[in-house]
Amino acid sequence: MSEIKEFESVDSALKQLPKEDYDRVKKILYGSETHDIEVSEESRELASKYNIELVTCGFNCRDEQLRSPKVVRIGLFQHKLVPFPTSTPIQEMKYALFKFANKAIRIAARGGVNIFCFPETWNMPYAFCTREKTPWCEYAENAQFGPTTKMLQELAVIHNMVIISPILERDEIHSDSIWNTAVVIDNHGDYLGKQRKNHIPRSGDINEAIYCTEGNSGHPVFETEFGKIGISFSCHHPLNSLIFGVNGAEIVFNPSAAGGSGTEPLWSIEPRSAAIANGYFTCAVNRVGTEVFENDFTTGDGKSPHRESDYYFGSSYVTAPNGTRSPGLSRTKNGILIAEMDLNLCRQVKDQWGFQMSQRLDLYADLLNRATRSDFAPQIVRKSCKQQL
Amino acid sequence: MSEIKEFESVDSALKQLPKEDYDRVKKILYGSETHDIEVSEESRELASKYNIELVTCGFNCRDEQLRSPKVVRIGLFQHKLVPFPTSTPIQEMKYALFKFANKAIRIAARGGVNIFCFPETWNMPYAFCTREKTPWCEYAENAQFGPTTKMLQELAVIHNMVIISPILERDEIHSDSIWNTAVVIDNHGDYLGKQRKNHIPRSGDINEAIYCTEGNSGHPVFETEFGKIGISFSCHHPLNSLIFGVNGAEIVFNPSAAGGSGTEPLWSIEPRSAAIANGYFTCAVNRVGTEVFENDFTTGDGKSPHRESDYYFGSSYVTAPNGTRSPGLSRTKNGILIAEMDLNLCRQVKDQWGFQMSQRLDLYADLLNRATRSDFAPQIVRKSCKQQL
Repeated sequence: MSEIKEFESVDSALKQLPKEDYDRVKKILYGSETHDIEVSEESRELASKYNIELVTCGFNCRDEQLRSPKVVRIGLFQHKLVPFPTSTPIQEMKYALFKFANKAIRIAARGGVNIFCFPETWNMPYAFCTREKTPWCEYAENAQFGPTTKMLQELAVIHNMVIISPILERDEIHSDSIWNTAVVIDNHGDYLGKQRKNHIPRSGDINEAIYCTEGNSGHPVFETEFGKIGISFSCHHPLNSLIFGVNGAEIVFNPSAAGGSGTEPLWSIEPRSAAIANGYFTCAVNRVGTEVFENDFTTGDGKSPHRESDYYFGSSYVTAPNGTRSPGLSRTKNGILIAEMDLNLCRQVKDQWGFQMSQRLDLYADLLNRATRSDFAPQIVRKSCKQQL
Repeated sequence: MSEIKEFESVDSALKQLPKEDYDRVKKILYGSETHDIEVSEESRELASKYNIELVTCGFNCRDEQLRSPKVVRIGLFQHKLVPFPTSTPIQEMKYALFKFANKAIRIAARGGVNIFCFPETWNMPYAFCTREKTPWCEYAENAQFGPTTKMLQELAVIHNMVIISPILERDEIHSDSIWNTAVVIDNHGDYLGKQRKNHIPRSGDINEAIYCTEGNSGHPVFETEFGKIGISFSCHHPLNSLIFGVNGAEIVFNPSAAGGSGTEPLWSIEPRSAAIANGYFTCAVNRVGTEVFENDFTTGDGKSPHRESDYYFGSSYVTAPNGTRSPGLSRTKNGILIAEMDLNLCRQVKDQWGFQMSQRLDLYADLLNRATRSDFAPQIVRKSCKQQL
């Protein structure tokens, strides 16, 4: 299946349908109504000046008698590396991306954003497709004290904003090891902690296992002034999503570098499924465009060596715990999605649907324990030695 | 949100898009190409005679060097109760539905189907919305020896077909208890076993918890001549889906009675998510239409008493382990979906994506154990007592 690059988005294509059909298709595919939210003129002007698409969305939630609304605005930033070639010297590349990030965060701040999230390894090429260690490992930084965290701490204070910054982490204290990590900076500019990616993909051009191993930081939920947030890099793994719910997350961010036509059909399913099953908001944020490298590499699919990455299809979006989703950013452009939600919706949906009530965690704790034993016997019913259930 | 009844399907609405956009939207929303499969003229003629929509789909799979293809055809039957009013005497209602089932199974048999599946509680009104015990509890039958199983055992032999029959079960041996159960009959007409619904919903008109409790039959995988199959009634629960994968299922059937505009957006997400995460095919099969009862009932949403059920939106469909889905049956009509798949695709996708390799079941067994303890302390990072990760 060849990649589609120039196609703007499913959202925009659907708008060609007759109005009545569009409304029905949208209701079935996207869920309940959302509402428009206001963002400042300044925010829109900056976005237009910097040529960054700005999409906004508000999720509906009812008022409660005893709890005040907990309204929060999140900002998802999707961006290309272009116009910087991947061979740009590291310092220069980072500085250029810092400048761009600065612009994006200003747009978000003027749009009232409280929590801002970048895509996976946002401050470097997603170079794992090359399997080259040099120079890419040099991009890795200390999570707490590295230059990216430092730069963002300043912006976090200026804009009173929580910032989630997914980078390649260097842990000098533990054998100079490398991790795929998201740093969380609070709105006072303090380093709050980090999430190391819990499940490392190893397929096609997604060769992260060549650089790092499964994360050992657990499934922390960061209690910020704007809500309880988690970072799940691993939407392919429902167990990973589950534990953030168990730990009380209200918003789970999914920073991604998702590309290729085989992956794209999963993009609109997995984060939504996680939101529905676990009663929290998910924020899927992706990079955009193709990245071209200096040297040939292969994809492990028997095809010719090449220098182009998969096409990262953007399409960042937000899902509410009732499964309703926002429009997506485009497949082709730099963009910021600003979504406003009342976090009270999480508990409202859990009360209404009761999935947690009937979840039977104790049963599954036992089943998973058994499944990992070397003498595990799966529950199989064969005619010859049939179990009478 | 009001219900949409007359709308045929998202699939058919999308066909109004310009060809190029339709192809792209379909690729992104539905996944890789599928192919046409042949079914006999007789099958099509019978379908047309009985006014049952017939939709077919073949999933692609590559040939392997050491394993022969394991090609199987499944048939999903979605049907309305209409023209029988819900007040029809029980014997009469069952007999009428038996006759209809007989027709459907003949169509499927002529279409080469090996495994046939009905929707949830297929042989009765989905009367749990009423919360009335009488007469609905009288519909419950012994799983192994009841009249529905008996009738289907004969058809299974005649047509050399595995049949999955979801019914309300009466267990006379255990206090006359009632269960929401699927009976599995093999292609020789033998009762192979049963799956009791593991997670019982209790929300809106889905009052199953008024009639029965969470199933105690585990997550059996039935090793039939045509493949290893499981029955998951509970797509809202990723843990339930997970264990069928752990137990080795190749096809998981999701018999449903899914209705209402709040639920419909979940329909195209949850079964697909289960297929992707667990490396098996899922077959989501739903009832169709509205069922009208004799007495008023309320939905627990403060709205007026009424006699109409939710609108069950049909839309039965199949998903392959790579996330590719079949077209759906309509939202409005009786229908049979015949899908052909090579079960070798399950392992091929697991090998390619490696989700199972990086699943970390041992970690989650431990985490779930902790989460169910009364002294459970979720992993929360607060500024005051911040954990250094």
